[in-house]
Amino acid sequence: MTSKDEPGTQAPGDGFHVFDTTLRDGAQREGITLTVADKLTIARHLDDFGVGFIEGGWPGANPRDTEFFQRARAEIPFRHAELVAFGSTRRAGVAVADDPQVRALLDSEAPVVTLVAKAHDRHVELALRTTLAENLAMIEDTVSHLRAHGRRVFVDCEHFFDGYAANPDYALDVVRTAHRAGADVVVLCDTNGGMLPARVQAVVRTVVTDTGARIGIHAQDDTGCAVANTLAAVDGGATHVQCTANGYGERVGNANLFPVVAALELKYDRRVLPPGSLTEMTRISHAIAEVVNLTPATHQPYVGVSAFAHKGGLHASAIKVDPDLYQHIDPELVGNSMRMLVSDMAGRASVELKGRELGYDLAGDRELVGRIVDRVKAQELKGFSYEAADASFELLLREEADGGPQRFFRLESWRTITDQRALSGTEAAGTVETVENEATVKLWAKGERIVATGEGNGPVHALDQALRAGLERTFPELARLQLVDYKVRILEGRQGTQSTTRVLITTSDGTAEWSTVGVADNVIAASWQALDDAYTYGLLRAGVRPNE
Amino acid sequence: MTSKDEPGTQAPGDGFHVFDTTLRDGAQREGITLTVADKLTIARHLDDFGVGFIEGGWPGANPRDTEFFQRARAEIPFRHAELVAFGSTRRAGVAVADDPQVRALLDSEAPVVTLVAKAHDRHVELALRTTLAENLAMIEDTVSHLRAHGRRVFVDCEHFFDGYAANPDYALDVVRTAHRAGADVVVLCDTNGGMLPARVQAVVRTVVTDTGARIGIHAQDDTGCAVANTLAAVDGGATHVQCTANGYGERVGNANLFPVVAALELKYDRRVLPPGSLTEMTRISHAIAEVVNLTPATHQPYVGVSAFAHKGGLHASAIKVDPDLYQHIDPELVGNSMRMLVSDMAGRASVELKGRELGYDLAGDRELVGRIVDRVKAQELKGFSYEAADASFELLLREEADGGPQRFFRLESWRTITDQRALSGTEAAGTVETVENEATVKLWAKGERIVATGEGNGPVHALDQALRAGLERTFPELARLQLVDYKVRILEGRQGTQSTTRVLITTSDGTAEWSTVGVADNVIAASWQALDDAYTYGLLRAGVRPNE
Repeated sequence: MTSKDEPGTQAPGDGFHVFDTTLRDGAQREGITLTVADKLTIARHLDDFGVGFIEGGWPGANPRDTEFFQRARAEIPFRHAELVAFGSTRRAGVAVADDPQVRALLDSEAPVVTLVAKAHDRHVELALRTTLAENLAMIEDTVSHLRAHGRRVFVDCEHFFDGYAANPDYALDVVRTAHRAGADVVVLCDTNGGMLPARVQAVVRTVVTDTGARIGIHAQDDTGCAVANTLAAVDGGATHVQCTANGYGERVGNANLFPVVAALELKYDRRVLPPGSLTEMTRISHAIAEVVNLTPATHQPYVGVSAFAHKGGLHASAIKVDPDLYQHIDPELVGNSMRMLVSDMAGRASVELKGRELGYDLAGDRELVGRIVDRVKAQELKGFSYEAADASFELLLREEADGGPQRFFRLESWRTITDQRALSGTEAAGTVETVENEATVKLWAKGERIVATGEGNGPVHALDQALRAGLERTFPELARLQLVDYKVRILEGRQGTQSTTRVLITTSDGTAEWSTVGVADNVIAASWQALDDAYTYGLLRAGVRPNE
Repeated sequence: MTSKDEPGTQAPGDGFHVFDTTLRDGAQREGITLTVADKLTIARHLDDFGVGFIEGGWPGANPRDTEFFQRARAEIPFRHAELVAFGSTRRAGVAVADDPQVRALLDSEAPVVTLVAKAHDRHVELALRTTLAENLAMIEDTVSHLRAHGRRVFVDCEHFFDGYAANPDYALDVVRTAHRAGADVVVLCDTNGGMLPARVQAVVRTVVTDTGARIGIHAQDDTGCAVANTLAAVDGGATHVQCTANGYGERVGNANLFPVVAALELKYDRRVLPPGSLTEMTRISHAIAEVVNLTPATHQPYVGVSAFAHKGGLHASAIKVDPDLYQHIDPELVGNSMRMLVSDMAGRASVELKGRELGYDLAGDRELVGRIVDRVKAQELKGFSYEAADASFELLLREEADGGPQRFFRLESWRTITDQRALSGTEAAGTVETVENEATVKLWAKGERIVATGEGNGPVHALDQALRAGLERTFPELARLQLVDYKVRILEGRQGTQSTTRVLITTSDGTAEWSTVGVADNVIAASWQALDDAYTYGLLRAGVRPNE
């Protein structure tokens, strides 16, 4: 398991477990509600990625999880993962064969079961309200029962680290009981997430030595150390890591699957995924974010869109010499890529690199690069920012490189009117109000003068509608474009409403997204510039040639 | 420094440094562009929080940073922090006294300077293009020169950990050279963020032992371990930690100040902040996010709105028995609070606490607190946020407590017109443009109907001017009020310009500032609401009584 081969040339065996609990513990994250269809889609992604185990939920605890296990069995031809059902040890004072919750675990037909058990004496007494001895009997009975029915069993020891601090003998008894009863792995859980790596490593090492059990780790991120705690447990002898995609989970979240497996593969030289999987990591991280309806975290290690984005001028010039100087790994190893951000902190080097990214070789033309740098600096002094507006930067670059504006239409004038009227004119009225927005644009396109009007639920929306109404006959390609994000930033914040306004607009044509920027004293004028760039770029992308 | 007292009963001395670089390294984060005013505001927050050092930027490298140091010196009465200028060692082959970049560091008049130095032999040769010996001379000369001019000097060893792996003797020579020349702290930087804690701790321990220098740590988060790496360095003997608020920084980001200091105070029992500071942590984290115009990260450790939010049924029932069962710390220690996700953000306790802050004792009136909580919840559902809009919250509270609206004027209707005209009507024109904004308001105040018109350089500014023109005769107190900040955030970002808009306005009367909020489909309607609250609150503050 510690071969020095290239990542992904050997398949991992059972010696090390990558165990994913996105579908169970990850779903506890505030803001996530998964349908059965969502869970099936995520399970397919996780199996594609190559995790060894997918914990699908708690069958019997809610009907959605019961249905998931039925459908997953029938519909998903798992290539790498085994499906795991999560449940609890039998209730106190009840025979295990009579416990309906334990029966539901068997009925799920999952080949593996994770049982949660209390390992902290205070929790046994306060939350379970039973004796310490009965808790051990509950563990022993339930593990034996599931083993007798042919299931592989992992035992999650809840609050293990706090329990070990409070009563180490009892916590170790829990591990030994589970191990003796036939659990394949005993998982030490930092349930409230309060641990730090040094302590985790020391405790895991002691438990491995004292009990002889195979040990796993389940870390929550409440100290911001879940990834490090997981790796510290591996350093201490754990060979089973429980994680969630993108670190989703209760409160702050769980140990994030992606940086954990990346560290194991790339920093520990340990094969924990099937060959070729690591390069799918960025794609799968983003795909799962889409399924749970969260924006992929831009600054997530390894897979974030900013993870290999370089801004500082010092960095950019060094990267031109050698990309490795400011990157700890080659981004392609995890399916990500390097990006240069064009900002006033940067200079010629980042413009050249950015040009290369966009398919322009500018290296040979010092004069052209100089012109672009000068324009970017002049624009940034006015408040433009190109680091989040690639499309506006590309239009600028094309204008300088191809000699002349890339324009399809030209504005003569526009006007927006927004008004709010009380429904009655008396002094007593004033709470029932209606706001109306109307915009008129006068344009020239293909030699023709166009006047069009639009309404919207804000002045910018009305302007967008008027522009579309005016241009759709000349450029039917515009029908596919949709504004998907709109951001406003007021610059020089100490001047209140007299400040300069920067607008960023993100536009989609259904297959790609691009961002454009506008800056003006006025939010509507700034929005107009960003809209102008957005549609111009969209038409270029659609293959329309300018000035026809 | 390792007293077992309650957090915050002793002030930290020079024995341990909390060094913040939000204004320099944090500003490298994709999407952050700080104005000088932003930097001054953040510096005030960091000083309030009690960090020992605030790295303000690179004077001389860009005019904004030079201006920041001038203004910070003049305008901010620092209570806890010392201001630090960042710069580089002298250029190769140049006398240190002749290096304009080094002179700019002295001209900044910052009492402390951080010098970045290369510690990796390959970087010296490839990026600096000089010899290993000249690099050492550059360090020695620059440190000595700054020391001779009375500055305290810290040296940041760029790429130290990779450099130490490649050529440990040279990396150690760099540390020894800086130390001998008079640097107070030599900071080991994991510049590309590729390290893991075990290695960081081992290397720091070796460097401390071998060189006798005081050692600091600067960790980037590319493996998701920056917080753990920072703590591992402290375990290895570092006594100076470099962090950024909310972990902002290049690529994935830097070690996040908040979980680092929380771990040191609460897990290490080490006093690193002034007494009482830790409970301000959540507020200051969110305030800095507002200044940089990023949504506060909901799942950030300790300070995220979800950090103590409980969703799992298992957790909820245990917490009813004892909140400590699923929380690693009491959230109030860091100024955060527990939330059960069946309920919503505003609880009774926070309304009571907020009321007390504003001078209202609500504790005795359960029914009143209930009414306020209900209204806040209803408003937050619509998109209002009172966290950064104290004045709007106080108006709401006063309306409920004093029975009836606190209003001085009432709107009948308003209208804004914005238009842009080309100065000539021919197709060749279009580059010389003029934008005009006009607003008309119809109001009632003291029984009188008022119609007034204003012009401005944006529709909101025009609306503000019209409102002032209409009210100034009735309320001369308004003349002293000035809008000092205006922020727009689009909610429901995936719907583009059709989204709900939240506007925050900050108003000043020359002695105090207050913030108000408005939410509507429409940026102008939302701005109107915030302006209405802003002036109403200003008149209340000026001692005018409503409804006279």
